Amino acid sequence: SEVKKIAVIAGDGIGPEVVAEAEKVLKRTEELFGYRFETEHALFGGIAIDEKGTPLPQDTLEICKSADAVLLGAVGGPKWDTNPKELRPETGLLGIRKALGLFSNLRPAVVFDCLKDASTLKPEVLEGTDLMVVRELTGGIYFGEKFRRDTEHGQEAVDTCAYNVSEVERIVRQAFEIAQKRRKKLASVDKANVLETSRLWREVVIRVAPEYPDVELEHVLVDNCAMQLLRRPSSFDVIVTENMFGDILSDEAAMLTGSIGMLSSASMGEGSFGLYEPVHGSAPDIAGQNIANPIATILSVALMFRLTFGYADAADAIEAAVAEVLDAGHRTGDIAVDKSKAIGTTAMGDLIVAAM
Amino acid sequence: SEVKKIAVIAGDGIGPEVVAEAEKVLKRTEELFGYRFETEHALFGGIAIDEKGTPLPQDTLEICKSADAVLLGAVGGPKWDTNPKELRPETGLLGIRKALGLFSNLRPAVVFDCLKDASTLKPEVLEGTDLMVVRELTGGIYFGEKFRRDTEHGQEAVDTCAYNVSEVERIVRQAFEIAQKRRKKLASVDKANVLETSRLWREVVIRVAPEYPDVELEHVLVDNCAMQLLRRPSSFDVIVTENMFGDILSDEAAMLTGSIGMLSSASMGEGSFGLYEPVHGSAPDIAGQNIANPIATILSVALMFRLTFGYADAADAIEAAVAEVLDAGHRTGDIAVDKSKAIGTTAMGDLIVAAM
Ligand SMILES: CC(C)[C@H](C(=O)O)[C@@H](O)C(=O)O
Ligand SMILES: CC(C)[C@H](C(=O)O)[C@@H](O)C(=O)O
Repeated sequence: SEVKKIAVIAGDGIGPEVVAEAEKVLKRTEELFGYRFETEHALFGGIAIDEKGTPLPQDTLEICKSADAVLLGAVGGPKWDTNPKELRPETGLLGIRKALGLFSNLRPAVVFDCLKDASTLKPEVLEGTDLMVVRELTGGIYFGEKFRRDTEHGQEAVDTCAYNVSEVERIVRQAFEIAQKRRKKLASVDKANVLETSRLWREVVIRVAPEYPDVELEHVLVDNCAMQLLRRPSSFDVIVTENMFGDILSDEAAMLTGSIGMLSSASMGEGSFGLYEPVHGSAPDIAGQNIANPIATILSVALMFRLTFGYADAADAIEAAVAEVLDAGHRTGDIAVDKSKAIGTTAMGDLIVAAM
Repeated sequence: SEVKKIAVIAGDGIGPEVVAEAEKVLKRTEELFGYRFETEHALFGGIAIDEKGTPLPQDTLEICKSADAVLLGAVGGPKWDTNPKELRPETGLLGIRKALGLFSNLRPAVVFDCLKDASTLKPEVLEGTDLMVVRELTGGIYFGEKFRRDTEHGQEAVDTCAYNVSEVERIVRQAFEIAQKRRKKLASVDKANVLETSRLWREVVIRVAPEYPDVELEHVLVDNCAMQLLRRPSSFDVIVTENMFGDILSDEAAMLTGSIGMLSSASMGEGSFGLYEPVHGSAPDIAGQNIANPIATILSVALMFRLTFGYADAADAIEAAVAEVLDAGHRTGDIAVDKSKAIGTTAMGDLIVAAM
């Protein structure tokens, strides 16, 4: 079959370790299913700042642009936290999202059976929770004009939040389509009682909704959503919202599952191009010790297969392998009840590859 | 003693019912402690829209301005939800905050013993949770310039988020001072890795922090805070943040206590002036049935006594009376385990007054 090009960004902290396991999975997929992948590594984030003087080097961008999909480990760490803005890993993240047109961030929040007790929520509340936050990723206050100016009350800082109809419509339509393939429920989250961008957002949702008559729609104010996620997490299916609200709510949703170390995410552009990464961070405190959990990154590969390549068979195989290995009781330290029995990053990767 | 003037805004839904019980408490305080109150009722919110054609009539504002404190029930309801902006209760809320200079919203989130099982969080996680969100209330994206304009991508909506040094400094100093009187821990929440207003915010926090050396300070990104509130709620003491983040986080924090129907709040201006209200809403579905829980409103009176009048003795008496009545097993329907034994709004108010 056609060779698929994957840009691989290992990044910082535990990034290189978890990505190495995901690459084993890619290789095993070639052997088992006959698919062919060409991977190209690229520098990004802290390591790119150190080696190239910028978090997002031009050739990294070129590698990503010429690829069919991007696999990202994790970026950032205290080492770069006090750098000026242009020399911070986050600036690279925002830059790559904009440059690759990744307007949609898909954040599934599911509860892994073996981790259902890891949540701080009561099991009976969590029961059946399986939701997806669809976050707009290239608009809103993240990318609006920002500046400082002097006033009689000292310096003033300004951020601008802007959304136009097209930006809202494409993310909202995508969310409706995702809901159609799931449990057919969509919660559109805004702050229409205060924000003009939210009022525009809601107008667009109301206008396009009749085209998706099979999807049950509710409008939820962002403050109320932060509460309802706690009160009735299992009642949500798809949640669509703007960039800043999505940042907050997707993290809240991920945390309440108790499975945050296992969750994958996709950032999609036009067509099937996507960037896939674990939800967890670069965890510099445990980097280089072969103890990080590679499962979220491996599941990000499964998500890539499903959403970008349409390789449902291989995606199924990866997900089944992960489930099998967990069912057999294998755990990395972060998810082990008995820490003394925990296995390492490479051992977990090998087991999953063997189970595929 | 000096007569204190209290503007009383009953508002909509259950507002009038819960405020009536709070007024009984005011009266009983006069009898027991010799304090003197003069109350003046004012129209606000939905009822003001219906009777005066505006959510915040000029004479309501005058009554509030000439008072020492404001007691508010609740405003809003589906009846006004589809009104144009100028004819919505929320517009009145934003208007009164700005007009009275209520720049600081104090939202204590505590767990009531009798309600600790009502939370969706595990009791062992919740144990010891007692935090206060200090939310900036008259700045940020709530009050920045808002407009629409036409673009080649359809209409565009714009909201502006602005903060100047003085605005940040006064709320941050207040939060430090509150922390000094509590467990001496302050979490300043921002999104300094993305927003210019957050970078200014953090600069101010860092500059003033040395003046409060007894307070342990941490900077928490808003997305991380949404997670940490779930993971380690009891580790927070005071959380200070800007308007929009505070809206979301204070509701998340309130909900996780499981005691949202019992929580009071204060919105403070310069000096000791304050507006006090329950955290819960107007609950139009149960209005007029004498079943609403008046405790959050009664506790708002206690908060008023403490923060505006310095009547610690009377505040203590109210809080002790509430505890006593709850300990004796009396419950309104919302907090009753056995709903058939629930008592009504007026009965609950009478019991608390009798216990004072
Ligand atoms: C690092 C930061 C800029 C980023 C964001 O806010 O988008 C992160 O929190 C995320 O959610 O991917
Ligand atoms: C009704 C709304 C405008 C208001 C706000 O967002 O401030 C409410 O949510 C609150 O927190 O008091």
